Amino acid sequence: MSKVHNFSAGPAILPASAIEASIQALQNFSGTGLSLIEVSHRSKEYEAVVTEATQLVKELLNLNDDYEVVFLQGGASLQFDMIPMNFLNEGKTAAYLNTGVWAKRAVKEAGFFGNVNVVASSEDKNYSYIPKDYVIPADAEYFHCTSNNTIYGTEMFEFPESPVPMICDMSSDIFSKPVDASKFAMIYAGAQKNMGPAGTTLAVIRKDLLATVTRKIPTMLDYRVHIENGSMYNTPSVFAIFVTMHTLRWIKSIGLEAMEIRNKEKADLLYAEIDRNSMFKGTVAVEDRSRMNVNFVLNDASLEDEFFKLCKSHNLSGLKGHRSVGGLRASMYNALELESVQALVNAMQEFEKSKA
Amino acid sequence: MSKVHNFSAGPAILPASAIEASIQALQNFSGTGLSLIEVSHRSKEYEAVVTEATQLVKELLNLNDDYEVVFLQGGASLQFDMIPMNFLNEGKTAAYLNTGVWAKRAVKEAGFFGNVNVVASSEDKNYSYIPKDYVIPADAEYFHCTSNNTIYGTEMFEFPESPVPMICDMSSDIFSKPVDASKFAMIYAGAQKNMGPAGTTLAVIRKDLLATVTRKIPTMLDYRVHIENGSMYNTPSVFAIFVTMHTLRWIKSIGLEAMEIRNKEKADLLYAEIDRNSMFKGTVAVEDRSRMNVNFVLNDASLEDEFFKLCKSHNLSGLKGHRSVGGLRASMYNALELESVQALVNAMQEFEKSKA
Repeated sequence: MSKVHNFSAGPAILPASAIEASIQALQNFSGTGLSLIEVSHRSKEYEAVVTEATQLVKELLNLNDDYEVVFLQGGASLQFDMIPMNFLNEGKTAAYLNTGVWAKRAVKEAGFFGNVNVVASSEDKNYSYIPKDYVIPADAEYFHCTSNNTIYGTEMFEFPESPVPMICDMSSDIFSKPVDASKFAMIYAGAQKNMGPAGTTLAVIRKDLLATVTRKIPTMLDYRVHIENGSMYNTPSVFAIFVTMHTLRWIKSIGLEAMEIRNKEKADLLYAEIDRNSMFKGTVAVEDRSRMNVNFVLNDASLEDEFFKLCKSHNLSGLKGHRSVGGLRASMYNALELESVQALVNAMQEFEKSKA
Repeated sequence: MSKVHNFSAGPAILPASAIEASIQALQNFSGTGLSLIEVSHRSKEYEAVVTEATQLVKELLNLNDDYEVVFLQGGASLQFDMIPMNFLNEGKTAAYLNTGVWAKRAVKEAGFFGNVNVVASSEDKNYSYIPKDYVIPADAEYFHCTSNNTIYGTEMFEFPESPVPMICDMSSDIFSKPVDASKFAMIYAGAQKNMGPAGTTLAVIRKDLLATVTRKIPTMLDYRVHIENGSMYNTPSVFAIFVTMHTLRWIKSIGLEAMEIRNKEKADLLYAEIDRNSMFKGTVAVEDRSRMNVNFVLNDASLEDEFFKLCKSHNLSGLKGHRSVGGLRASMYNALELESVQALVNAMQEFEKSKA
């Protein structure tokens, strides 16, 4: 069957090498004669997987010994709760930047545990830009931001100089480019975009952030427990961490500098066509355009269904915009090839000609 | 390569049909041309998986409309927190039966949220039996028990008549036999034993139990949120639910009555050999012997390593007892075939003869 070009927003396209390794491991994991999903998570063969995945994160983010790396469950959404539960004392205030639905959910959850100061928001313009001029109060417990807004297609290319520990949800652009991790006290990401399949969540935590709250934290929600147990306090999401490890191997084989060039090339190609093509237009502030999620619309919205049909006939999949914004969205995570973006550009040009 | 007999305690042996379906879906999921782990969890093809898995649970447990079924993340360990968070008001008391390490962890977590009354405990004899004579206070918010104790090899074959809602952790014997679900207000289980791979957790909740606490519950930890969103409040553990759905299909194809006969036959075969063989002895009260996890020791512990070597040479895997009890443990979940138990019995007889 012909190749499907996968522009899904997440779960999303993964490198072929990681999928092939998963299929092989489901048949016979690491020479055990058993399937990956039938072996003990405490077998030496599987412990090696978690160890390597952890090590690859440390290498790719160039982390020093001040940081701990754990794989958790529950997605970024559970982190919205665990972060204030672990780092925000009752009566104290945390600063949040509101750049989209997920950022806003993080704000809401922090409110269960302490006070929240929303330092800036782009909700006034349906999150079509990243606020730039805001002040992070020096007495906040931490500052929380979202580096890439999957639904709206905006991305932070610069981060503020924060006077307090900076925590970033990098779910949808982690490992898409080099990051100066030393600027952050915590980085976290649901795996299911640039890093692996659904089912595991990465958390990178600077040690001095731990043990800063006075409340009693339930065991499974306490970062220290997961750190002390090397992501194995209870049975981890075995398969998801395995695929993530192989995806990280693939990312390392390319390198983050090369990955950024690759992702920039894809984004440049598509944004150039959006700006050139008389049928389409972009929806977000040009300087904040995400390289991961490209949001655009047809100038004549009544032609949308027709364009989606054309896309389908060209095996272009996953291009429908999120229900809260409509239009089109092309998600172009690490594993998406330039040829897939070219196929989309070709379809846009064909559509324009057909209407000329 | 010769077949490995998989006696792992969990993650554990799964039906071949579920593993084959997973391999096929990693190559091309439901005719999409994409891998199972690359498609949107909101695609109609994947939503059908979650719907069918939910429906199969309802059928197998014969649930009426009083019950809701959800698939969550975080294992049974996160349920130890979510249960008291959702059902135990501060200042109120919940009753717990302490039959093992996992039950004790559940007790500890409940203490973060309210008072705990441990109605009975078998900790005095290293959890080698199930306490029988205890009183569940009529003013408790709920009664919590653990139907099968994986580490110790004990199983509850009868449940008390509880004057308050009964909540049961069935992680290691769910779907191994018919259960009268109407006796329970809640049943939950980490998937990675009888039901699927690691990464998803089943919760079956009677609706009248919901909304009984006054505390504010963080969104991701509120059962109502997951129920209202059909297990899709955020991205679920896609792969794990897929394999679980196929495992449930296989369980249904056999039927729970037949499954019980099959599991009883395996357990009878092994316990009979333990009792007959002069080299071995069982470690738990005969009437509480689990059909899922068979714990036993060598009368001469110094021969243990030698017996493990023999097991290995016969491709008998995963027989080491949990580090907290030592000895041997044969986990014989649904998917383990009688021939694997026979292979273990043969090895035990061979060992006895070699020492005669």
